[in-house]
Amino acid sequence: MKSIVKRFAIVTRHETELIDLTPQLLSEVEASGVRSGTAFVLSLHTTTGLTVNEGLPDLEQDIADCLQGLVPEGRPYRHARFLHEDGQMAVNAPSHLRGALLGFQAFFPIENGRLVKGARQTVYFVELDGPQERTWVLQILGE
Amino acid sequence: MKSIVKRFAIVTRHETELIDLTPQLLSEVEASGVRSGTAFVLSLHTTTGLTVNEGLPDLEQDIADCLQGLVPEGRPYRHARFLHEDGQMAVNAPSHLRGALLGFQAFFPIENGRLVKGARQTVYFVELDGPQERTWVLQILGE
Amino acid sequence: MKSIVKRFAIVTRHETELIDLTPQLLSEVEASGVRSGTAFVLSLHTTTGLTVNEGLPDLEQDIADCLQGLVPEGRPYRHARFLHEDGQMAVNAPSHLRGALLGFQAFFPIENGRLVKGARQTVYFVELDGPQERTWVLQILGE
Repeated sequence: MKSIVKRFAIVTRHETELIDLTPQLLSEVEASGVRSGTAFVLSLHTTTGLTVNEGLPDLEQDIADCLQGLVPEGRPYRHARFLHEDGQMAVNAPSHLRGALLGFQAFFPIENGRLVKGARQTVYFVELDGPQERTWVLQILGE
Repeated sequence: MKSIVKRFAIVTRHETELIDLTPQLLSEVEASGVRSGTAFVLSLHTTTGLTVNEGLPDLEQDIADCLQGLVPEGRPYRHARFLHEDGQMAVNAPSHLRGALLGFQAFFPIENGRLVKGARQTVYFVELDGPQERTWVLQILGE
Repeated sequence: MKSIVKRFAIVTRHETELIDLTPQLLSEVEASGVRSGTAFVLSLHTTTGLTVNEGLPDLEQDIADCLQGLVPEGRPYRHARFLHEDGQMAVNAPSHLRGALLGFQAFFPIENGRLVKGARQTVYFVELDGPQERTWVLQILGE
């Protein structure tokens, strides 16, 4: 059994931003030579999400708006306090909570060397506290 | 290592509907002959969900009501516009958002040929934009 | 390929409570001798969650408050009725719904014998209907 673990850097440009990982996922799976197995995709952060939806800019905006509506700015979050370890005020409680609601990982079977995925399923890395440098991970497990 | 990937068709009958996949999951795992590994269950769509909860009709209704309350109809969603590729108005922004909140996949270990699952855990395919023909996927990875 | 499936008991002490599984996860992966593979973590219950967030007590409280705000007590849930099988009234519809929103499982690649995880990622078992005796499962799949 082969296990390929790859880390990918992203520099996000906005506070909230959905970044399409699908083309890279597809090409990595193809390049891996794995014919049969599972691909695991995950974020290494706690103020980001990872989700799957139809790849349309209007839906990207609707997802951002939906999360901001469910977890609004300006509430008396406990995580709005001085963090000694960071040397600054924590102002990103909503980013943490939005990530918790959205989730941060997904998997896809690999069959005959190809990702098993719906035609309209786009895999998104979701920045919720940007802009920042971020890392996402792809593991390809199989043979 | 064996990897079995199977697609299953469902015809849903309602706009929102929870369909119990558990009996089929259990029998597929048993029939696979895999004694030790992992079962992956996922939807191939972006206006459906997949979730695990207690198998009670009243809870099914509560889950539907909860999602409809968190993501109501009739808001000014950006995805409420004419879609050239579909030849019609998109009216299902809430379906996409409800699916994003609920999630669309689950996994279960397989041990001694049996799914490792809580006694009250029922695996549900969740139609959020029906009625439609849908496909869900089961991958059994193991030996 | 090795598959190690372990069940761990927790006795929760509060109605809502986040319990850090990270130290146990790390030591189990190390003790397994698996150098390369995937770790799967899941709850066996339908009124609990499993999530990943930064390991700070104020965020734990914010997550609990957020779920309680999105799914409040005291609404006319259908699952608020006498359950013959339990011999009592069901009063935990919100617990089921909060778990559905949060999710109940996570996975992590294993590389060179170590869990691939962000430095700030803490893995939490989330009691949503305590206090109770609970079980979570770790599967280590690999070689």
